[in-house]
Amino acid sequence: MHDYSSCVNTIPVGVLGASGYAGRELCALIARHPGLDLAFATANEQRGSVLRLGGRPTTLVGTDEAPLGDAALVFSALPHGASGEWVARARAAGARVVDLSNDLRIGNGTDDVPYGMPELNRWGIAEAPIVANPGCYPTAILLALAPFLKAGLVAPGACVDVVAASGVSGAGNSPKRELLFAEVSDDYRAYGVGNEHRHLNEMRAAVRTLGGDVDLLFTPHLLPVARGILATITLPLTRALDDPMGPWRAAYAHEPFIELADAPPTLREVAHRNVVRLHAVTPSHLRTPTVLLFAAIDNLVKGAAGQALQNANIMLGLDETAGLPA
Amino acid sequence: MHDYSSCVNTIPVGVLGASGYAGRELCALIARHPGLDLAFATANEQRGSVLRLGGRPTTLVGTDEAPLGDAALVFSALPHGASGEWVARARAAGARVVDLSNDLRIGNGTDDVPYGMPELNRWGIAEAPIVANPGCYPTAILLALAPFLKAGLVAPGACVDVVAASGVSGAGNSPKRELLFAEVSDDYRAYGVGNEHRHLNEMRAAVRTLGGDVDLLFTPHLLPVARGILATITLPLTRALDDPMGPWRAAYAHEPFIELADAPPTLREVAHRNVVRLHAVTPSHLRTPTVLLFAAIDNLVKGAAGQALQNANIMLGLDETAGLPA
Amino acid sequence: MHDYSSCVNTIPVGVLGASGYAGRELCALIARHPGLDLAFATANEQRGSVLRLGGRPTTLVGTDEAPLGDAALVFSALPHGASGEWVARARAAGARVVDLSNDLRIGNGTDDVPYGMPELNRWGIAEAPIVANPGCYPTAILLALAPFLKAGLVAPGACVDVVAASGVSGAGNSPKRELLFAEVSDDYRAYGVGNEHRHLNEMRAAVRTLGGDVDLLFTPHLLPVARGILATITLPLTRALDDPMGPWRAAYAHEPFIELADAPPTLREVAHRNVVRLHAVTPSHLRTPTVLLFAAIDNLVKGAAGQALQNANIMLGLDETAGLPA
Amino acid sequence: MHDYSSCVNTIPVGVLGASGYAGRELCALIARHPGLDLAFATANEQRGSVLRLGGRPTTLVGTDEAPLGDAALVFSALPHGASGEWVARARAAGARVVDLSNDLRIGNGTDDVPYGMPELNRWGIAEAPIVANPGCYPTAILLALAPFLKAGLVAPGACVDVVAASGVSGAGNSPKRELLFAEVSDDYRAYGVGNEHRHLNEMRAAVRTLGGDVDLLFTPHLLPVARGILATITLPLTRALDDPMGPWRAAYAHEPFIELADAPPTLREVAHRNVVRLHAVTPSHLRTPTVLLFAAIDNLVKGAAGQALQNANIMLGLDETAGLPA
Repeated sequence: MHDYSSCVNTIPVGVLGASGYAGRELCALIARHPGLDLAFATANEQRGSVLRLGGRPTTLVGTDEAPLGDAALVFSALPHGASGEWVARARAAGARVVDLSNDLRIGNGTDDVPYGMPELNRWGIAEAPIVANPGCYPTAILLALAPFLKAGLVAPGACVDVVAASGVSGAGNSPKRELLFAEVSDDYRAYGVGNEHRHLNEMRAAVRTLGGDVDLLFTPHLLPVARGILATITLPLTRALDDPMGPWRAAYAHEPFIELADAPPTLREVAHRNVVRLHAVTPSHLRTPTVLLFAAIDNLVKGAAGQALQNANIMLGLDETAGLPA
Repeated sequence: MHDYSSCVNTIPVGVLGASGYAGRELCALIARHPGLDLAFATANEQRGSVLRLGGRPTTLVGTDEAPLGDAALVFSALPHGASGEWVARARAAGARVVDLSNDLRIGNGTDDVPYGMPELNRWGIAEAPIVANPGCYPTAILLALAPFLKAGLVAPGACVDVVAASGVSGAGNSPKRELLFAEVSDDYRAYGVGNEHRHLNEMRAAVRTLGGDVDLLFTPHLLPVARGILATITLPLTRALDDPMGPWRAAYAHEPFIELADAPPTLREVAHRNVVRLHAVTPSHLRTPTVLLFAAIDNLVKGAAGQALQNANIMLGLDETAGLPA
Repeated sequence: MHDYSSCVNTIPVGVLGASGYAGRELCALIARHPGLDLAFATANEQRGSVLRLGGRPTTLVGTDEAPLGDAALVFSALPHGASGEWVARARAAGARVVDLSNDLRIGNGTDDVPYGMPELNRWGIAEAPIVANPGCYPTAILLALAPFLKAGLVAPGACVDVVAASGVSGAGNSPKRELLFAEVSDDYRAYGVGNEHRHLNEMRAAVRTLGGDVDLLFTPHLLPVARGILATITLPLTRALDDPMGPWRAAYAHEPFIELADAPPTLREVAHRNVVRLHAVTPSHLRTPTVLLFAAIDNLVKGAAGQALQNANIMLGLDETAGLPA
Repeated sequence: MHDYSSCVNTIPVGVLGASGYAGRELCALIARHPGLDLAFATANEQRGSVLRLGGRPTTLVGTDEAPLGDAALVFSALPHGASGEWVARARAAGARVVDLSNDLRIGNGTDDVPYGMPELNRWGIAEAPIVANPGCYPTAILLALAPFLKAGLVAPGACVDVVAASGVSGAGNSPKRELLFAEVSDDYRAYGVGNEHRHLNEMRAAVRTLGGDVDLLFTPHLLPVARGILATITLPLTRALDDPMGPWRAAYAHEPFIELADAPPTLREVAHRNVVRLHAVTPSHLRTPTVLLFAAIDNLVKGAAGQALQNANIMLGLDETAGLPA
């Protein structure tokens, strides 16, 4: 078991895919982590350039140059589709892996890799050789839904209506015309409408493991902000709740990264932090029992790099909160 | 009957409350209108300052100095609560009135004043002495819902889930801390949650007149953009539709200000235009027949000043589209 | 001579390069112009798609499919380097040309093509077969400087310090990582520093034709806005001026697109308008006579498409202000 | 002398004026500081509300309720004009003071209080009972200029042209119409033009102490970003420099919070960090020796709260970098 409080014995970790937004955020978090040391970081297009993040400078290498065996744990922030192969290579080199892509997540054909959402599955993560880090939207949405589903509060067959909005960093930093500043600023739009978003399989599979026999209707939107996700969820209930936040209070009493708020959460409140901020309200004037849930995260932190580090902390026996901005 | 095509015979109109965003937009539209002439514009805090909008400069006067009788038609863009009294004074002075406040709208205790949504109520507007100009959110939402409700496609007792987002000009230009740039930028949040928004009475009353026996769940959000509203509406149907845009196609075939789009509408597409842009899709993977509707407007144009001018055009016997950017 | 007031006799014009920001703006302006008709518009990547701008829909064609001979005047908004060749082809087909690229502008090796800045060179434009439309920065800067230079108010050998800032549409809509929303938002930076911007040759050549024997130091910056340019110019004078706006007042008394403002101009004040808005002030506490000039334009209108249309109006004998938002 | 490395012996500090942007930033930095403890924080309008910043929650009190004697050091982030009186009261209660207002800064009639710019005046700060924390613009500008002035590289009588741009948090969070999101977004403008900005006296006095006999021409602009300042400085030299960054390299070799960059610095690069990021270039095509300097800071960190903490660290004998994001 490692003791992160000593600066002498840091654990070497590596990052595959350090040029994307999630990979960059991960490298920055690792640089400030008291118990980890960045053994290598890869970025094919930027190989040779130097990453300066406060600690020791790191020269970016090509992915195929990564000294995988030098790391006790490897984070893969490679693109979907490309990641799975490198996860296998890192395993073969003896490293444990946190995979930030969706290649190995539940609902994508590979239900044997533990799903890295510590608040729902902490014990499955600790000993796992590989952990599939959840998607950004699923993180916000599932952490909001889980306590209600587990408590049997949602009627079988109900349609859970999820309208969500994300900052543009969620779409990555590959240059695309529709992501240019002059296109996104002053604008707001839905995309992947009609249940066509690639995160739906993941969410549906997770909802089933939580015992929910519900339909999901998921409508994401693109916001003119760089980072942040807000999910607005309409949840039909089997019975009215006196305290709509009660299920969360019970389930998340000791969770360091779950915040229950007195008012609807905002993106600014969660920016650069590894938290999910939640609020619930019972709408007036409705004939059927319903609760309205709000969940806000920073898509690059709790929705990607921060949660990946939280998983790594658990896997490496470190304090789960080490190096994570709360 | 006036003939707007002649520049000689323009009709004098006045604007009460020209300093707010809607009032300012209205003055700018009137200045470019071929058949109207701005007889006066009031703004208590800015009295004496000169409005230059391309045409003849107009010196702003205090509201109690307005020569109400000089105008054939008066627009009141005064604040809610204050407007009703001035509508009465303008009427007493012989002017017809378009009231942009919510004081006289249906659902606010005054169902005898025609509701100024031309696409739904054109004939009630033409001869009316006073017209209540609809709210911005209701304009987008009701124009999306009406053809479905009228066609009996929505099951009695259903809950219509409306998640909407608005640019900050919808909150007016009174200085409030939460509307400062340093607060709104990089942010996104829900407000008026739990069916507490003041536009709900108006929408509920309008829905009833359209024959809908449904519940509304309305959750507005504040966007970091200056102008624009997008409503995302989940509508449970009595039966699946082959063509989810069919009801609109039938109802709005000849409407100059309704646009049916092949993809979800964006705020940029409707900015500075007097249109509602609509898109519908049938979501996959749902057990109950459902359609997902999207409606985008510029909250200051079709959601306020533009629609007010559209109503005025109808009341004054002008071409309904005169002076309106389509 | 054409009479634009009759809708029957509109003049056919074509646009080469209608997919960029300037080309798109130009098509939109032409669609609202009372005396012009869009005969064709080209966009290689989008050929076959339909442009709907209020008037008759136009199907985009490839540049090599353009019926150049159908147009009395062709606008080329093709990229720098590619434009020159098509200007020649359009001429060969009998059309007159306004070239929005910098290929034929003064200072770029081709001083025989008239420089299309009507306020400085109206008579050279009227009969020209080809007009080189000025760059966006040069438009703002030269219109501010010209009356001071022509009046001999700037000391020979002085260094004119121009710090300017532009919205990102000035960089075009080719997808580049550094222009992504997540990069540009919340940011501000200088670029092309040390007199390396490609507009400098054009500005230097123009300054010489205005009789100025001065050095230019030009430092452009990238703003997190979609459109607009503000130039802040420090101009050392031969003598102190009682009225720092005097030279403009004298030179621009009858110019429809030059606005003299009582306070520093803002980007919002000029957005979507074909104007240059100017303000000057004499700074206190300086030992040498100096005036501080501010010039704001919409880079896509007065800085590109609007000025191109202004030039075309002059070339075609139309009212110079026809179809241009003032 | 305190030893900050022990968590047992933290030093109690207080914050007067914790509701403004600088005061809030200061409380957040103190909460993360390993050697300081927030003894109290005042905010008249928000008294009674609780500040949660990761550590122990702090209940805001009215300024006149502040237990000034409980703090070894008090930060005053009260408004200009009001601060001076509270500095005296805190001194009378035995506390040392860092004053973030401009009341006691050089050039404002009170040259006996040390000016808290550690890179220029570290030794004057260590033992001082009161330190005047510099303004945001002066911090960026003076740190850029000082090595050039001290080295005698600027010609006597020269005019140093400073064009700067600031995010809106620099204007505070009092609700003003011109700072609303709907006004600032999509906009950019100069203000305080003609050498009328209130930071000029401070900068002029500081320049004199650095031995500079120069004129300053300072033209600030308002950017549509929440935080950050970029100063673009044209500096006429007595002779051309082979290495324009040389003077900084020599003067700042061991400074932890000064970054020399290979390219013009950007606001994103310095956000949330206590650094000044500098770049210099020699412009081509000029007849007189000139260097162009760029300096970027986060106005709320190195430009206010961070620098205040840096001063406090020095005054309290702590590591100067403790608790400061570099």
